[in-house]
Amino acid sequence: MNENVTLYENERIDQLYANAIQIIQSSEVFSFSLDAVLLANFPQLPKRGQIVDLCSGNGAVSLFMSQKTPAKITQIELQARLSDMAKRSVALNQKTEQIQVIQADLKEAPKLIGHDCIDLIVCNPPYFKDLPTNHKNPNPYLAIARHEIHTNLETVIQTSAKLLKMNGRLALVHRPERFLEIIEIMQKYQIMPKRVQFVYPKADKAANILLVEGILHGKKDGFKVLPPLFTYDAQGEYTPEIKRMLYGNE
Amino acid sequence: MNENVTLYENERIDQLYANAIQIIQSSEVFSFSLDAVLLANFPQLPKRGQIVDLCSGNGAVSLFMSQKTPAKITQIELQARLSDMAKRSVALNQKTEQIQVIQADLKEAPKLIGHDCIDLIVCNPPYFKDLPTNHKNPNPYLAIARHEIHTNLETVIQTSAKLLKMNGRLALVHRPERFLEIIEIMQKYQIMPKRVQFVYPKADKAANILLVEGILHGKKDGFKVLPPLFTYDAQGEYTPEIKRMLYGNE
Repeated sequence: MNENVTLYENERIDQLYANAIQIIQSSEVFSFSLDAVLLANFPQLPKRGQIVDLCSGNGAVSLFMSQKTPAKITQIELQARLSDMAKRSVALNQKTEQIQVIQADLKEAPKLIGHDCIDLIVCNPPYFKDLPTNHKNPNPYLAIARHEIHTNLETVIQTSAKLLKMNGRLALVHRPERFLEIIEIMQKYQIMPKRVQFVYPKADKAANILLVEGILHGKKDGFKVLPPLFTYDAQGEYTPEIKRMLYGNE
Repeated sequence: MNENVTLYENERIDQLYANAIQIIQSSEVFSFSLDAVLLANFPQLPKRGQIVDLCSGNGAVSLFMSQKTPAKITQIELQARLSDMAKRSVALNQKTEQIQVIQADLKEAPKLIGHDCIDLIVCNPPYFKDLPTNHKNPNPYLAIARHEIHTNLETVIQTSAKLLKMNGRLALVHRPERFLEIIEIMQKYQIMPKRVQFVYPKADKAANILLVEGILHGKKDGFKVLPPLFTYDAQGEYTPEIKRMLYGNE
């Protein structure tokens, strides 16, 4: 472990055993969820070029991906407290050469890192609409991460369309309830949905997580629904696929 | 068995064991597939009112549904040879009170049975586009059943929107490759997709059958991806869910 990394009050270092990544977390501010692990494992990662992680939070998705590709990764996170945690996690894992962390509103990303230059964008955005009737977490860090307070689906997709190269890909993790909106907005910005994977909590339950990948200026044919993923087996244990993502192959 | 039912050359009577339905089939003309069984089991059936089966072929979907609801069912089938088989199967199962078979182009259906009056429409339409490059079956009966030669997705959905009552439902079985088109066209005609179920040939394979249900003038929220169905288990046997649909509960 890197002795130079500072931990603030209520922060801890968690480990993703599957790939020996250590991540600074805090339940008061942000902890990565299974969704981040699923997202990092969903797209085929470019072997070179540039990846952008929008709404990167404490940087879990980027760190997981960094073990599987040498491509450069840029994290964009609005919340200063989270991007600071992310920077320290990058240092903790000695990934400062590969991963840069930018604290900014994602709308600024094309200005900051350029248009038409990104091979892959991953995003684990806020899932819930910012409706007056929606119950929000009183903790502002968590409310911003979960609700579309400072950004929304359309801004994420529109910004991605600006950042991506021709045939660059956008991979999102989201809720199946918003699937219709996601594919409508993707197509509005010329990102053609191509691969979808539904994650079901158990074999007999409706899907609760959606993974979707689209290609900028892709053709309309070739839409594919990948094999399903299940989070838990009938005994309530993680399934082998999920265990492999979390704990590796041993 | 009804002694008065005529069988023509190369026709046979097949049985769906799950519900004791007998169906006149002919491999030269049309035989129902698993898709019909899946479609008949997908929507919640109205207990009364009117159901329409578009592209009804030899009437398998209607016959399966007729064992689960007393609602009236109208079959619309373009091909005279198939609607004739369907009529004889209806008689064979003593369902002439419940099921009527109309030989017509489905575009004529609103004129023949009325606008805004149907509770549920089911349709197992031709799956493949009528492109010059597509290989078609040289048998014209099968080519018409499989390829969009005499109708297409947009006509099916547009016609359904005319037939359905407010809040009536359209349930389709189709191919996942055409999912984007299906939900786009449904929404174009104010049929809001609400329930989707993907059928995977095996646990580790991409989905090859799509079941989708939409509601006329339904609201945009509440989109649901139902638990997955698998056709075969790891040993290549039908799964228990499929066996139940095909052979019943015994």
